[in-house]
Amino acid sequence: MQVYEAPLRDMRFVLRELHADDGYGDLPALEEFSDDVVDAVLEEAARLTRDVLLPLNRSGDEEGCTLENGVVRTPKGFKEAYEQFREGGWCALASDPKWGGQGLPERINKLIEEMICATNVSFSLYPGLTHGATTALEGHGSEDLKNAYLPKLVEGSWSGTMCLTEAHCGTDLGMLRTRAVPQDDGSFRITGAKIFISAGDHDLTENIIHLVLARTPDAPKGVKGISLFLVPKYLPNADGGVGPSNGVFCTAIEHKMGIKASATCQISFEDSQGWLIGKPNKGMEAMFTMMNTERVSVGVQGLGLAEASYQAAVYYAKDRVQGRSLSGAKHPEQAADPIIVHPDVRRMLMTARAYTEGCRALGGWVSRALDAEKFSTDPEVQKRAGDFVALMTPVVKALFTDLGFEATNLGVQVYGGHGFIRESGVEQHVRDSRIAMIYEGTNGIQALDLVGRKLPAHMGRYLRSFFHPVSQFIEENGANAELATMIEGLGQAFGALQLATGMIAERGLKDPEEAGAASVDYLRLLGLVAIAYCFARASKIAQARLAEGAEDAGFYKAKLITAQFFFDRLLPQATTCFLAIKAGKQSMMALDEAAF
Amino acid sequence: MQVYEAPLRDMRFVLRELHADDGYGDLPALEEFSDDVVDAVLEEAARLTRDVLLPLNRSGDEEGCTLENGVVRTPKGFKEAYEQFREGGWCALASDPKWGGQGLPERINKLIEEMICATNVSFSLYPGLTHGATTALEGHGSEDLKNAYLPKLVEGSWSGTMCLTEAHCGTDLGMLRTRAVPQDDGSFRITGAKIFISAGDHDLTENIIHLVLARTPDAPKGVKGISLFLVPKYLPNADGGVGPSNGVFCTAIEHKMGIKASATCQISFEDSQGWLIGKPNKGMEAMFTMMNTERVSVGVQGLGLAEASYQAAVYYAKDRVQGRSLSGAKHPEQAADPIIVHPDVRRMLMTARAYTEGCRALGGWVSRALDAEKFSTDPEVQKRAGDFVALMTPVVKALFTDLGFEATNLGVQVYGGHGFIRESGVEQHVRDSRIAMIYEGTNGIQALDLVGRKLPAHMGRYLRSFFHPVSQFIEENGANAELATMIEGLGQAFGALQLATGMIAERGLKDPEEAGAASVDYLRLLGLVAIAYCFARASKIAQARLAEGAEDAGFYKAKLITAQFFFDRLLPQATTCFLAIKAGKQSMMALDEAAF
Repeated sequence: MQVYEAPLRDMRFVLRELHADDGYGDLPALEEFSDDVVDAVLEEAARLTRDVLLPLNRSGDEEGCTLENGVVRTPKGFKEAYEQFREGGWCALASDPKWGGQGLPERINKLIEEMICATNVSFSLYPGLTHGATTALEGHGSEDLKNAYLPKLVEGSWSGTMCLTEAHCGTDLGMLRTRAVPQDDGSFRITGAKIFISAGDHDLTENIIHLVLARTPDAPKGVKGISLFLVPKYLPNADGGVGPSNGVFCTAIEHKMGIKASATCQISFEDSQGWLIGKPNKGMEAMFTMMNTERVSVGVQGLGLAEASYQAAVYYAKDRVQGRSLSGAKHPEQAADPIIVHPDVRRMLMTARAYTEGCRALGGWVSRALDAEKFSTDPEVQKRAGDFVALMTPVVKALFTDLGFEATNLGVQVYGGHGFIRESGVEQHVRDSRIAMIYEGTNGIQALDLVGRKLPAHMGRYLRSFFHPVSQFIEENGANAELATMIEGLGQAFGALQLATGMIAERGLKDPEEAGAASVDYLRLLGLVAIAYCFARASKIAQARLAEGAEDAGFYKAKLITAQFFFDRLLPQATTCFLAIKAGKQSMMALDEAAF
Repeated sequence: MQVYEAPLRDMRFVLRELHADDGYGDLPALEEFSDDVVDAVLEEAARLTRDVLLPLNRSGDEEGCTLENGVVRTPKGFKEAYEQFREGGWCALASDPKWGGQGLPERINKLIEEMICATNVSFSLYPGLTHGATTALEGHGSEDLKNAYLPKLVEGSWSGTMCLTEAHCGTDLGMLRTRAVPQDDGSFRITGAKIFISAGDHDLTENIIHLVLARTPDAPKGVKGISLFLVPKYLPNADGGVGPSNGVFCTAIEHKMGIKASATCQISFEDSQGWLIGKPNKGMEAMFTMMNTERVSVGVQGLGLAEASYQAAVYYAKDRVQGRSLSGAKHPEQAADPIIVHPDVRRMLMTARAYTEGCRALGGWVSRALDAEKFSTDPEVQKRAGDFVALMTPVVKALFTDLGFEATNLGVQVYGGHGFIRESGVEQHVRDSRIAMIYEGTNGIQALDLVGRKLPAHMGRYLRSFFHPVSQFIEENGANAELATMIEGLGQAFGALQLATGMIAERGLKDPEEAGAASVDYLRLLGLVAIAYCFARASKIAQARLAEGAEDAGFYKAKLITAQFFFDRLLPQATTCFLAIKAGKQSMMALDEAAF
């Protein structure tokens, strides 16, 4: 059964306790967001997602989107829910107040994104894509374009998309063919066909503003000849409202494995009027500005769905009675014990729990760095925070979505046969989470970004923003008897990560395929170390709070157990990753293409 | 794209080379199955599955089964395909010639099952369930019942089901409520509601014979009071044909994540006439006779789908051009290289390949043991083979389906965004393979069966049937320089398995929850060692064949590479499993139920 209560206690822990000494200092710009204000926002978000978005999740999956006579319709209830969402100001949360936004820092915004994704990840894509388009436009658009489009986009009465992929090119955008022909008035005429456009067409907003990658006639070949254009579905009229149609058509919607309530469209631009965003041939840069925060948000989809699946599994594991505890009947008055008594059910629940708490903790750290990069008044802090964001963006995207998919599968497994039935709602989590490992750059591409770009950048400077706090923590707590086993486990995994980093640097210099062959295992190894570090920190705090006699001792005790479970049962994966990296590319690349 | 050519070369390798000295000796009963005969059967099966079953796989998934006015219909084309399948004698392959079967040994039968599951796992369940019912009836039914039902079941004009699960009990069958009231004529009146009945109702056969677990009025509580009954949908008339309706109704069909062309039914028995199979209150034993071979068959579903997904991924990886090889353009004449040049795509393909070849090799070993248990004229061999089957049944079921699910997900990942679109056909493999980890006893239950029943049975005797050949092989090949790294890897993993076995035996004696907490990781560890052993053996054979100048050197070279990849990249998981087992139950069981 799909149930959800936002994990507010853990969110507050991550927000206020876990990373309090993150080394980024206080950010004056965030002073207005007092604890009271933030608590009120989080609680309201918890209510909204539970009461408005969650009830539409299953029905949205069953009904899906439809395309009839060129009109795309979202499932029943989505339009009303979006209206409520928009009117409540939720579209504008993370945007700049200059354009009507509320300027919420990422540390809070990402928690709310988690709630939205946990309850209705299909829904999340409509405001999510708008936010991506808004960010790119804000960063690179002309003042005229910003004035004309940002207020509508930020308030959510218009929505946005990102039109990158074409049928023959996704990862390799250098091959794209959509053409943009300059006009005398400074605008362009855009012609081409895009696929996989999330929120590409729908009935939630008055207008849809497409950000489109295309090529001008004289553009150089490959990725260096791609420009970014703004192409509205309807041209704005003189008073800024919706004017005439602009030759933008939805030619098909995809039938997908999951996120069925999200309209994934094929969009055809037929001599549509568009305007350049940023400089000619610099479209990829403009797009990537936006893509980094979007990648973190896709990671949060994995986290949200893992939490939703975990809660559904806990609900069932307490409710379903089947068999007896191996240590003797726990509920002798019933025909059987609830299945939560069985070790293997515990294993699955604890695994999902450790993944969600671990990812939330790491995500919280990265969000603070996003805030520090943007709001710190200290250039050194800005740089260091930026380094950490650059390093961790591919990790958060790939690790959270991989673990999210694992967690949702554990949820189904807890349900047994009932989990395979659509009515249970939990197989939907599996299907909905599967795409997050693919879009916004496949997880393999994230790993290549990590080892190919982020590791070597500035002579390894990005990596130091992570290695430094970890090694400092290990040093400072080496003598802490209570933390001893965790520090030992963290130290070993960190040692393996350092060794692996050296191997990749050395081998990769001679042969880039060696770096590629190591990439996915390296990303996982780094991610496991990062989560282990977060759990060790959390444990230290929990021990201190318990020693002080904190009121909600239960929370801190549970945190210690979950952390210990992570060290006992999940961190050992680091060894496998290390051994796989060490093996090198030889057997991976040896087979002739024809022999496959 | 769903493509499939049965991997006949590898199948013949497993069948004739890999296990030739399996220690079970020649089985005179199998002499009639000459290489020529077997090759002809395998080739015909390859054609049938590719040309008849595969084309119905996607359409069957899209259309699903329907229930209207009490009548269940399979998707378009299924009836015709089943008729062709039945007329070709494929239903009767594995059955006893006494009842019209062809008595094919399991070593061949399981290969054909792999082909059927690879091309249409939904279809496989209709003859598959019939085969299960046939086996139980053959083993425990009265002569009258056998004479009346087996000929029709074996020829496939009637089909069978296994009715175990009720809404409130699946794993814990002791709680089931379906009643069986004895009648003066020796028959029973059966009343109750069953769920999750595969092939429970459909339009493929004239009659459906349900094997139903139920309770007689005076039966003891729990699993010791369950009996097995045969309950036909239509009562046979005097001449053995289909007579009057027997109060058996399909009240609903389930809407599932996958295997949508398989009718999963809720079946209501309303005062239906049934006949006891075997002894009263011994229904579980009769059921489990059948369930062991069925569990191996479910494992084969995982293998078949992994192979199908692998082939689809290879097809796409060679066809899709995107990006350039990190070692320089491989196809400079094209706009980009096919994605098979990229290390991470290789990693995914090689992983799926190693899993399928590894599982096929291990499955081939277990199938030979099934044959030896049945056909050997040497009681010592029969016992040893039976021990091995008992040990490996839960391993094959759980390991193959876990790895199958992993492989199908890798298939989707190779396709990127296109893999998430239903049209690609590869997300169906993921959905279709998910259930195999659950039904016929969840994989967690398999692991409990392994550590709780199979390990301690007869003072560890079952385990010796596996440990003995592995340690012998390591000893005999310790000095083989060409095999040195594999023998070393196998030796380490085997050492970890032996240690883990000791830990579980010791801790489990004091505390059964310790065995439960270790079970899933232990099963995986044992399975990895078994596959490593098969790959090491295969490599030894491949080296010998290459040294002899074998004609198809390409096959043996590829085998060596795939084996090395398994040792380099996949066997290291054994370390993670060992460390998780070593950690024990503490952090897994520590959290209060209320704290979840």
